[in-house]
Amino acid sequence: MSSLFRLALLGTGTVGGGVADLIARNKERIAERTGVQLEIGCAVARNLERARARVPEGVPVVGDWRKALADYGCDVAVELIGGLDDARECALAAAAAGLPLVTANKALLATHGSEILEACSDSGVYFEAAVAGCIPAIRVLNGALAGDRLQRVRGIVNGTCNYMLTRMARTGCSSAEALAEAQQLGYAEADPALDVDGFDAAHKAVIMAWLAFGTPLTMDGIPVAGVRDLAAAENRYAAEFGFRIKLLANAELTDDGVAIWVGPALVADDHLLAKIEGSMNAVLAEAEAAGPLSLIGAGAGAEPTASAVMADLIDCALDKRAGRVPSLPRPNGTVLLPQEEYRCQSYMRLAAIDEPGVLAAAASELARHGISVEAIRQPESRSGEQVDIILLLHEASWGALQNACSSLRELPAIRAEPVLLPIAVAHTPAS
Amino acid sequence: MSSLFRLALLGTGTVGGGVADLIARNKERIAERTGVQLEIGCAVARNLERARARVPEGVPVVGDWRKALADYGCDVAVELIGGLDDARECALAAAAAGLPLVTANKALLATHGSEILEACSDSGVYFEAAVAGCIPAIRVLNGALAGDRLQRVRGIVNGTCNYMLTRMARTGCSSAEALAEAQQLGYAEADPALDVDGFDAAHKAVIMAWLAFGTPLTMDGIPVAGVRDLAAAENRYAAEFGFRIKLLANAELTDDGVAIWVGPALVADDHLLAKIEGSMNAVLAEAEAAGPLSLIGAGAGAEPTASAVMADLIDCALDKRAGRVPSLPRPNGTVLLPQEEYRCQSYMRLAAIDEPGVLAAAASELARHGISVEAIRQPESRSGEQVDIILLLHEASWGALQNACSSLRELPAIRAEPVLLPIAVAHTPAS
Repeated sequence: MSSLFRLALLGTGTVGGGVADLIARNKERIAERTGVQLEIGCAVARNLERARARVPEGVPVVGDWRKALADYGCDVAVELIGGLDDARECALAAAAAGLPLVTANKALLATHGSEILEACSDSGVYFEAAVAGCIPAIRVLNGALAGDRLQRVRGIVNGTCNYMLTRMARTGCSSAEALAEAQQLGYAEADPALDVDGFDAAHKAVIMAWLAFGTPLTMDGIPVAGVRDLAAAENRYAAEFGFRIKLLANAELTDDGVAIWVGPALVADDHLLAKIEGSMNAVLAEAEAAGPLSLIGAGAGAEPTASAVMADLIDCALDKRAGRVPSLPRPNGTVLLPQEEYRCQSYMRLAAIDEPGVLAAAASELARHGISVEAIRQPESRSGEQVDIILLLHEASWGALQNACSSLRELPAIRAEPVLLPIAVAHTPAS
Repeated sequence: MSSLFRLALLGTGTVGGGVADLIARNKERIAERTGVQLEIGCAVARNLERARARVPEGVPVVGDWRKALADYGCDVAVELIGGLDDARECALAAAAAGLPLVTANKALLATHGSEILEACSDSGVYFEAAVAGCIPAIRVLNGALAGDRLQRVRGIVNGTCNYMLTRMARTGCSSAEALAEAQQLGYAEADPALDVDGFDAAHKAVIMAWLAFGTPLTMDGIPVAGVRDLAAAENRYAAEFGFRIKLLANAELTDDGVAIWVGPALVADDHLLAKIEGSMNAVLAEAEAAGPLSLIGAGAGAEPTASAVMADLIDCALDKRAGRVPSLPRPNGTVLLPQEEYRCQSYMRLAAIDEPGVLAAAASELARHGISVEAIRQPESRSGEQVDIILLLHEASWGALQNACSSLRELPAIRAEPVLLPIAVAHTPAS
């Protein structure tokens, strides 16, 4: 049984071009294996000339996605436009026209996900490519672990930040230097804010948390930090204590709600997450019965992302043939844990004047907030100069840690805002 | 939309008991999320008394799987009997009754897979639990990479062997000592042959190669070696050259066919595969567009395997509701590369009398077979004693390497069958 499945390819940039290329290379093989004949029914692009070079001859290329959805009798809308407003309108129009939606747009899902899901409930929505490129995070969270009970999902899901952190750790350079290098190599956009400030990773965290725990598809209340302001010093000190700094996306079930956060965090250097280098991504899921499951692969780039879109297209075609749509969790009433209640071990750096009593004052301030110190290191210096005091702190609530930072900043000997980072993976007693 | 989905649970041992347990714990959550209400319709066991303690009260427990399939109006046959003959008959009977089949039986698929697939083509067959426990190898090879082109799949897919190799590397013990330890800890069966001699891994290799490349579902022509005869010396020498020895399952597309083999092999110690310790499993897939994708998790055990069975049950129920069956590749005409044509770098150990000229004789014998030496190491010894000569050899065909071994054995100074192991992951120039 063979069935023609025609795409409205909305966007022919990096990923869209990759999809067109993979269809050209693999369509016979896919048809033979699955009975699905993929074909580009029409393509949408701002630059029509450039788009024509990216799709097979004869494929109509138009400038308006509305026209593409209305006029060419396609079977699926492949939304690779990116951004929010246009993509949202386009997704809703596809659903209204009864077309299933394949999208790589994480911002769209993390922001307007509930609306999109509702609209697509009869026609179906597929978004493996939205999270971590070719890593099958969606398939695993929504399929492979569907009969299990997720406890935690976390990962390195932004290649730009991970490339920057890898360079900072290797060369000791600043985050600005690392960013310039990433941009030169094409790992970072001209406007890198979405990546570097953590929002891209946060979009993915929100989607993974929804699939794992049923939390709402919204960025509201999600603490997000990036790597832009991370000092080279943090990498150096973390390394001295046997840690690497990674930008992590986290979603974790606690007794009081699901803790979702994104930011730079310390990871014990013998842990798998510490070994994910350059632009690679990793997603680690922990489920009650399955235990830990780690997925590592290319998290971005034309080909890996297009590979994930292709898998969705085949699923979508097979589903359509059977008249079914994917079973997806509706966001339920699961409560987010407020950030101040999140408990973790942490790293703190204090820029202090090196004078007698400063350590004692800092330690007593921490004790006053109920925070106990696991380790402390103060590099040698001549008295009276500014020095960095590095503290590793036992588990405490983020709220208590932030209050302690505010109090510490008030001490006359402390000369800058304390730096506070969670320890996401502590050293195991054996290591 | 909610639908009752009743299991004929054929087998209530380790995995079957785990499935019953997960259904009891998670059925409400699964029903809420997917609309599928899982229920054990009847259970089959040899020991009825023990089985009754493992399934909910009121579930009929019978001794004959035929009766279970015929009399209880179940929606799916969950074959967890194991073994070959009974399992085959049971799978065929389920298909004849129009029931979909969920199985964790790798031996069944690798041996009678074509027959089973043919019989189940209308009713459907699901087997995520057959390969590497909770690692979603099937879903990834058949789903996530379905629109891509696989180039290689390899992995550590037998926890018993990996536990043994981990112990041998850490403690220097013999394989017999490591096996005794694994048995004591419950990581190895009383009759460990299937694991220790590589056949369990080979079953999984055959299934993965079929999904990746369409090769036939048969063990015919697959070279299989285990770890039973691996000497402690190999671990020691491999470590001196910066390698770890792992039992690998391999399937690799070459210009002349698909090379499938299972056996102990050297892996550069900075590679991910070298870091998979104890009873953990890993599956590494390399696809043209996606690039390398690594999956790491628990490869065996009641709960991880049951977690994979649960995922299949949910898929199966959703498919049945839509009246569809999974799209699986039919084994096609893809040719296996004969073992003697497989090309690899390799490790060789010669047990030789330490006398002048032995190195020269060995090297000239290798040269005569067109094999060049990359590195050589001969531990110091007093002349006239037996010594180990360790050679790392440049890429050569397995046939040439085996011929060279035969010739070397003929040399008067060589006192035992040469040991020959492939180098599966060489050191990269940078490392």
